[in-house]
Amino acid sequence: MNQTDQSCVNTLRFLAVDAVEQAKSGHPGLPLGAAPMAYVLWDRFLKHNPANPQWVDRDRFVLSAGHGSALLYALLHVFGYDLPLSELKKFRQWESRTPGHPEHGMTPGVEATTGPLGQGFAMGVGMAAVEKHLAAVYNKPGLPIVDHYTYALVSDGDLMEGVCAEAASLAATLGLGKLIYLYDDNHISIEGSTDIAFTENVRLRFQAYGWQVLTVPDGNDLNLIEEAIRLAKEDKDRPSLIAVRTQIGFGSPKQGTAAAHGEPLGPDAAAATREALAWPPDKRFHVPAEAAAHCQQAVEKGKNGEDQWNNLFAEYQKQYPAEALAFHNAMAGVLPTGWRDKIAEFPAGGMATREASGKVMNQLAGLLPSLIGGSADLAPSNKSYLDGLGDFSTANPAGRNLHFGIREHAMGAMVNGMALHGGVIPYGATFFVFADYLRPALRLAALMQTHSIFVFTHDSIGVGEDGPTHQPIEQLASLRSIPGLTVLRPAEANETRAAWKLAIERKKPVALVLTRQKLTTMEESEYAAADGVPYGAYIVQEAEQKKPQIILLASGSEVEISIKAAILLEQKGYRVRVVSMPSWELFDEQSEAYRQAVLPPGVPVLSVEAGITMGWSKYTGSKGASLGIDHFGASGPGPTVMTNFGFAPENVVARALPLLK
Amino acid sequence: MNQTDQSCVNTLRFLAVDAVEQAKSGHPGLPLGAAPMAYVLWDRFLKHNPANPQWVDRDRFVLSAGHGSALLYALLHVFGYDLPLSELKKFRQWESRTPGHPEHGMTPGVEATTGPLGQGFAMGVGMAAVEKHLAAVYNKPGLPIVDHYTYALVSDGDLMEGVCAEAASLAATLGLGKLIYLYDDNHISIEGSTDIAFTENVRLRFQAYGWQVLTVPDGNDLNLIEEAIRLAKEDKDRPSLIAVRTQIGFGSPKQGTAAAHGEPLGPDAAAATREALAWPPDKRFHVPAEAAAHCQQAVEKGKNGEDQWNNLFAEYQKQYPAEALAFHNAMAGVLPTGWRDKIAEFPAGGMATREASGKVMNQLAGLLPSLIGGSADLAPSNKSYLDGLGDFSTANPAGRNLHFGIREHAMGAMVNGMALHGGVIPYGATFFVFADYLRPALRLAALMQTHSIFVFTHDSIGVGEDGPTHQPIEQLASLRSIPGLTVLRPAEANETRAAWKLAIERKKPVALVLTRQKLTTMEESEYAAADGVPYGAYIVQEAEQKKPQIILLASGSEVEISIKAAILLEQKGYRVRVVSMPSWELFDEQSEAYRQAVLPPGVPVLSVEAGITMGWSKYTGSKGASLGIDHFGASGPGPTVMTNFGFAPENVVARALPLLK
Repeated sequence: MNQTDQSCVNTLRFLAVDAVEQAKSGHPGLPLGAAPMAYVLWDRFLKHNPANPQWVDRDRFVLSAGHGSALLYALLHVFGYDLPLSELKKFRQWESRTPGHPEHGMTPGVEATTGPLGQGFAMGVGMAAVEKHLAAVYNKPGLPIVDHYTYALVSDGDLMEGVCAEAASLAATLGLGKLIYLYDDNHISIEGSTDIAFTENVRLRFQAYGWQVLTVPDGNDLNLIEEAIRLAKEDKDRPSLIAVRTQIGFGSPKQGTAAAHGEPLGPDAAAATREALAWPPDKRFHVPAEAAAHCQQAVEKGKNGEDQWNNLFAEYQKQYPAEALAFHNAMAGVLPTGWRDKIAEFPAGGMATREASGKVMNQLAGLLPSLIGGSADLAPSNKSYLDGLGDFSTANPAGRNLHFGIREHAMGAMVNGMALHGGVIPYGATFFVFADYLRPALRLAALMQTHSIFVFTHDSIGVGEDGPTHQPIEQLASLRSIPGLTVLRPAEANETRAAWKLAIERKKPVALVLTRQKLTTMEESEYAAADGVPYGAYIVQEAEQKKPQIILLASGSEVEISIKAAILLEQKGYRVRVVSMPSWELFDEQSEAYRQAVLPPGVPVLSVEAGITMGWSKYTGSKGASLGIDHFGASGPGPTVMTNFGFAPENVVARALPLLK
Repeated sequence: MNQTDQSCVNTLRFLAVDAVEQAKSGHPGLPLGAAPMAYVLWDRFLKHNPANPQWVDRDRFVLSAGHGSALLYALLHVFGYDLPLSELKKFRQWESRTPGHPEHGMTPGVEATTGPLGQGFAMGVGMAAVEKHLAAVYNKPGLPIVDHYTYALVSDGDLMEGVCAEAASLAATLGLGKLIYLYDDNHISIEGSTDIAFTENVRLRFQAYGWQVLTVPDGNDLNLIEEAIRLAKEDKDRPSLIAVRTQIGFGSPKQGTAAAHGEPLGPDAAAATREALAWPPDKRFHVPAEAAAHCQQAVEKGKNGEDQWNNLFAEYQKQYPAEALAFHNAMAGVLPTGWRDKIAEFPAGGMATREASGKVMNQLAGLLPSLIGGSADLAPSNKSYLDGLGDFSTANPAGRNLHFGIREHAMGAMVNGMALHGGVIPYGATFFVFADYLRPALRLAALMQTHSIFVFTHDSIGVGEDGPTHQPIEQLASLRSIPGLTVLRPAEANETRAAWKLAIERKKPVALVLTRQKLTTMEESEYAAADGVPYGAYIVQEAEQKKPQIILLASGSEVEISIKAAILLEQKGYRVRVVSMPSWELFDEQSEAYRQAVLPPGVPVLSVEAGITMGWSKYTGSKGASLGIDHFGASGPGPTVMTNFGFAPENVVARALPLLK
């Protein structure tokens, strides 16, 4: 290692050490061990423009091992991003831009929120898939406007997580050759040596998936690292894993032990580390002039790189103006004018909302070139296939249908990564009950506010014969509990149409919750779904004189049941309002005036939903009640199960009558 | 295949086909393809006693590919379990014992509830781990009272799931040589050929984990299957995967296609299948006398097997009476007398509830030999290590600390499998926010009502610096939404002690939710935690004259804050009651009289919990309010984050005052 390189690497190391020491909290072990590989990547390979972290053709870098955040902040600082030393000094403090784990949107240059292990790994796979897709769609001979790599730094912890296994297998199937992951192979996890829980042959496993696997036996050898990355870049057919043997906490007295992982070194060990690595004993947050000068070259290099790309794009624009506009709009998230008026209204009749969703999606796909996604091996059931738009494969990366395989978790994380990359509006589909499998990814979507769309069908005990393992009960409540996730459970086809429009326009994570079973489609004029759905809840059947004695408040398939119940109650002489509530989150965003107009205080409310009643009391109040199912379901024909568990008009009436007394 | 074998195999096939046809719902593809391997296993290897599905030393068989339930019911019927043909004729019908997916506790001989893919695979690993552990603890020279295999039938879908990858890696690390999985390698998933999403080399992947991998190129060749299982049994050091190449829907016109997977063949294709396999065209649910006679031998064989084991155990009892009693009690779930009174009360002082949990667990471990478990690589943080009781490893399977690695999902499923096996009280620990990673296993624990204990620490924004990725917000609500799961969030050390006792005694799934940060320990006499916790909520500080003007209703770390707020309110002249509510589920189980005594109607209630407010309105009513956090957290020192988000006595007072007007 030459003097400059050594200085740069140690700058990264000690910025991280000092940040952790100052915060009295954090993870020094990874930065000390992995700084050399991160430095080589950022110094010699990474295509990026520190002055414009949004440059569309930049390489993506994900720190999947998010606990090493101090290293990432050090990189961003020394390579010239808008992250001053003052922020590093506020590491992990209230309202700093250097939170404990990297947060996308909080810090310039942070491509993804990471920390929950495996997520960054899988999000990177989603990013690389989009790069390959957009390149296939937009690039023209001699005009590769989409041509970048996706890198990540991953840890033992990432590689133990199932979501990583799922994503790794799919990455190879999809032939994501421009995906390059540096594996910080330090043989240590929190409980001790990886021997206690991780004895597998990782290299052989990745070979089995179809990855190129490269090994760097000495994580401090910059040239070996460089050579490995170069080989990884050369193989355009296979994703590459570079296993870099490192020492956690390198240079510190805790080197090679679990103690180096997740707590400050402490003053003594920090001092010893300074001595071992020949770093000035008395300087904190020290960036030697030599290191600063060297790394800051990235700013000029980045500017030149983006300028060159701008020239390339200008030429592209000249030769292919329509494609250039389409690409620009895709990356900027600009939707084509008039698209929302072109989705056909559903005529009266009967149709499952999954069926309606499939029909809407297929119209949307024709109007929105960015819409791309797939199912976790349930496309025929989820009705999520985009007809005639091809399957994404090594042979056809322009295909817009992804086959995620039976890998719900990787699907969720990849959808997030796809949204983060930009240029696409991604969706992932599975049975609603299996939302549980991708829950960590749902949470990250909500935390990052990515435009991730999740299509969940088979949404209640109405699923029927498949039984309780396949019948959602608590999933509605548990998804509603995630802050920032919009859950939409439309009542019929036209509400589904409105819900999809909203999912496209909202540009935030949305979960569409759809039935397996057929529901009555109401004519748009009667239901006004297009007008009502965006409000979260709206009146679908009004009481006589607009003076309800009771309100039946339902979502999804229970709206139809409630309308039938209302008719029975009206026959008994009661004035009944039926409110369809496709989304709690949207309703809660409305003005108090609107909310009280729909649910006037003092009028008893009976909520009707084939899910757990938890949370409904917020709307039903103390004079109301909830008809739900507070236990697991049972196997049997759907209509039988629904009726036997009380989801029939007669039982709604029986539950409503006491409230009318 | 000789005539009898052929008859038996086809009996299984057509019982399944007929059940699916009759139900007009179900999955015929797997039974048609996998019947031969299932038959060989059950006929030539499986150690079981159909008359006593609870025999402790039986081999375990898990149908991980639970959608093939019709095959399992056919096996149970023909091999003499208490499952008459009348039940097979009611396949997937309301209140039958043959639900759409296998349900443990519903059907004799069903070892685990399966259907959500990958779960059965991982539960089997848990079962095999317990077998190895109990054998190491109890077996004596010449007296192998614990000596059985764990088998599963797994599908492509199982092997694509991340939870399987996690469990497979750990199974090899733990040296579970008596784990033998038959892989129904049919090259088909719902969306078509596995080529579209599953191109990895499965055999090589499992070799990389450290499994023995065997291949049967023709799934109809009973002798090859037999030979492979024999080889698998011989290798006692490595788990074995036997890849059996099959044709989904074998014999039917849909053979080898996705169409054979998940819907009835239909009358025409069913007839064609009968013809192709030379099965009587006009008979339904047909069991030829020859097949019945052959398979029913399992009853006699099973009886003899258990008799022999009973003799072995009698001899064991004679030589090792104490161990025999201990083994009996472990398997029967009998707890040693007096154990609950031996857990020391915590003196006044300060301690995080995770810390208290660790101390209680270590006392429990000494009293309850069945307590065994571990963490997903967070034992030092979860305080879940059982000191001095050894690490479970190939060298020491008697060790009671499992190192699950960073594999939360497999941990959850394995804990369930361990509980299903019996003989142990298993626990798994991780950060509370990562409960999301094992949610599908939590759901199955709740559905099966297994005695699975989950230890979740770092339970709120109080986590501090690690930031929003590590700060639970919605996890309390989302766990409470799972029917049948008991969530316990103790307020301090003595509540933690009471909660652990309850977790041990309840014999149902329990989640313990614990703080990272220190909380004030109240003396038992004041708090009466031991008396109060089992009621779910109880008065920890009473208002003057027992006539509260307001009730502060809190859980966990917010109880202490509420007590401080109550003092401030009392200084302002208000009468305030503070109720600690460690568990909604337990409180909801109490009599109305008790519930109204704690929360008298008409008294305004302010709930105080550092989690999403969702659901609290059930207890606060329309006159109350909720102090919670309905958005994600932020990185910063724990006390700062808590205070800034409103969890401080002063803010509780500010929120309470309007309710007192």
